[in-house]
Amino acid sequence: MSTSTTTGTRGETVPTEPSAATAADHGQGDAADVTALLERGRTLATPVLRAAVDRLAPPMDTVAAYHFGWIDAEGRPSDGDGGKAVRPALALLSAEAAGAAPEVGVPGAVAVELVHNFSLLHDDLMDGDEQRRHRDTVWKVHGPAQAILVGDALFALANEVLLELDTVEAGRATRRLTAATRALIDGQAQDISYEHRERVTVEECLEMEGNKTGALLACAVSIGAVLGGADDETADTLEKYGYHLGLAFQAVDDLLGIWGDPESTGKQTWSDLRQRKKSLPVVAALAAGGPASEELGQLLAADAKANDFENFSEAEFAHRAALIEKAGGREWTAAEARRQHTIALQAIESVAMPERVRAQLAALADFVVVRKR
Amino acid sequence: MSTSTTTGTRGETVPTEPSAATAADHGQGDAADVTALLERGRTLATPVLRAAVDRLAPPMDTVAAYHFGWIDAEGRPSDGDGGKAVRPALALLSAEAAGAAPEVGVPGAVAVELVHNFSLLHDDLMDGDEQRRHRDTVWKVHGPAQAILVGDALFALANEVLLELDTVEAGRATRRLTAATRALIDGQAQDISYEHRERVTVEECLEMEGNKTGALLACAVSIGAVLGGADDETADTLEKYGYHLGLAFQAVDDLLGIWGDPESTGKQTWSDLRQRKKSLPVVAALAAGGPASEELGQLLAADAKANDFENFSEAEFAHRAALIEKAGGREWTAAEARRQHTIALQAIESVAMPERVRAQLAALADFVVVRKR
Repeated sequence: MSTSTTTGTRGETVPTEPSAATAADHGQGDAADVTALLERGRTLATPVLRAAVDRLAPPMDTVAAYHFGWIDAEGRPSDGDGGKAVRPALALLSAEAAGAAPEVGVPGAVAVELVHNFSLLHDDLMDGDEQRRHRDTVWKVHGPAQAILVGDALFALANEVLLELDTVEAGRATRRLTAATRALIDGQAQDISYEHRERVTVEECLEMEGNKTGALLACAVSIGAVLGGADDETADTLEKYGYHLGLAFQAVDDLLGIWGDPESTGKQTWSDLRQRKKSLPVVAALAAGGPASEELGQLLAADAKANDFENFSEAEFAHRAALIEKAGGREWTAAEARRQHTIALQAIESVAMPERVRAQLAALADFVVVRKR
Repeated sequence: MSTSTTTGTRGETVPTEPSAATAADHGQGDAADVTALLERGRTLATPVLRAAVDRLAPPMDTVAAYHFGWIDAEGRPSDGDGGKAVRPALALLSAEAAGAAPEVGVPGAVAVELVHNFSLLHDDLMDGDEQRRHRDTVWKVHGPAQAILVGDALFALANEVLLELDTVEAGRATRRLTAATRALIDGQAQDISYEHRERVTVEECLEMEGNKTGALLACAVSIGAVLGGADDETADTLEKYGYHLGLAFQAVDDLLGIWGDPESTGKQTWSDLRQRKKSLPVVAALAAGGPASEELGQLLAADAKANDFENFSEAEFAHRAALIEKAGGREWTAAEARRQHTIALQAIESVAMPERVRAQLAALADFVVVRKR
């Protein structure tokens, strides 16, 4: 990487030592910094994202604007929950990791968001999910054809936003984004096929989550650097950080999906149990062996046959959650989040980059594993 | 364009004068040449296309192989109808137009075929079409989720096949393919919205057909040249040929959709009338005015309300077809095919290229307007 430097050059007050501690050690000490990073990602990327979506022909522009939460189902301006915006924040830091200005990462941030939302539109339809971010999903409001069509359009737009830069770097960035998109699709194919299976191994679950969550976070962390002129080795190492950050993120998501506070997550209690998701805590508990694991296995198999979750009491879900915990699934998943967090932090230690950027990437990693939503 | 030449250099016996004649003048004089060109496209592109599709993870590889007609619904090897393969033939000629070997156009041919088939998979699902190439469509056999997922995968694969060339030319080719894909999506959005409208103007119909058919044929004719190093001006002019060739192709398709011989087309009699398609002959007849046009308008409006085409007799369809013809819709569409054919031929007259290649592009244009299927 030709333009980066291994020392901080702007006299920031953030720690200059790379963090290798676990989330538990860190707590939320860097919360203010992380909030500012997420805010910066939103502020720089959203106008460009909106301008890109505005290029879509009607009615696709309206359908997309609904999906992003910019308008409601009646077309009135809305201030919807656009998500945590971790990916845009990462894409901007990624550019800075290569010694470029954060703005260099903006087309990458926008392209990654477009691909992410393409996959949400299609996955919600394939999975029959009726709610996302507290609102009816696009296929539910505008019909399946619009969900397919607008998803396709966002995917095409992602390539367009990058390739119109008309640089060698943009071609390389698009290639990485394409690889990540293929992984996303592979992950969704695995997710669908696992639904029909009684047992899924921990390794299969991790591979699926790596494809569905890790690959695009990895791309977010490399794409700004690639646009800023980073070489492939640097980009690969940044992707390693992003991939394991994604796995840590997903492990925490899987914990919140069972034990999360509905007030914070905005989801129902026992959300993933209701959806019968074969998430990490479940899969790990089933693989653990022992009395609780066996009882859980028998219960879940009977549940799958009976298929009447809508009539379940809170106590019935609580019993299953308790069995998962007793079999060690909760603890294993929390340890897995910490393990992936550590691998992510180790990866960025080996890349030459400004120390401020390294510290901010570490703070984002900490945020991801301690978050409550 | 640095490597092309305005004179044939290989002593071929094909005409060295560019053809500006209409299809009617030409007849099928170059049929043997065209058959060889289509065959060459298939021979060079299909193995690379199959290798690309083989990269998909199961079960997507199998679903895609079924879609392409390489296996049947039970997974047995099959020798399905892969279509006329005009696009691969054009992509190879495109490379030669830039003075490159036809093989240089192969990744472009494969990428264009992947995008074409991505759109077929999604369009068939959106439109509820149950049959394609005499076989059940993918969503009918493998379910809607697989049709969405494999379509997405083919789109991603198209970018992958180009970008892994890792050249500046590949980046430019991908940018053109992305633009064509956006047009395809726009065309499908128009097609869907027109279904709900009673009247569509001739201009709207041509715009929709230009997006759905013209844009990707245009890309097929420029992509090989771009990969072979052609400049943007050359690529744009080649695209003009391809775009108007696509409109000529679609006008002929629209004629065959009503008056085609089922033995040749493999479709039902009055196929487009049964599907109530607002194709060019219908739209032109409705726009023409006069007694036949007005009677047709009243009939089609009543048909749309009654919605019982499955009970229609052959005579009822024949009556509507006769009205379209009487109002001038058939003649107008045939003239439009010739007009677009002429514009296409004029476009390639202004590009410097080997005369053999120019003659072969002209022969392909002639083939497209005189074909019976």
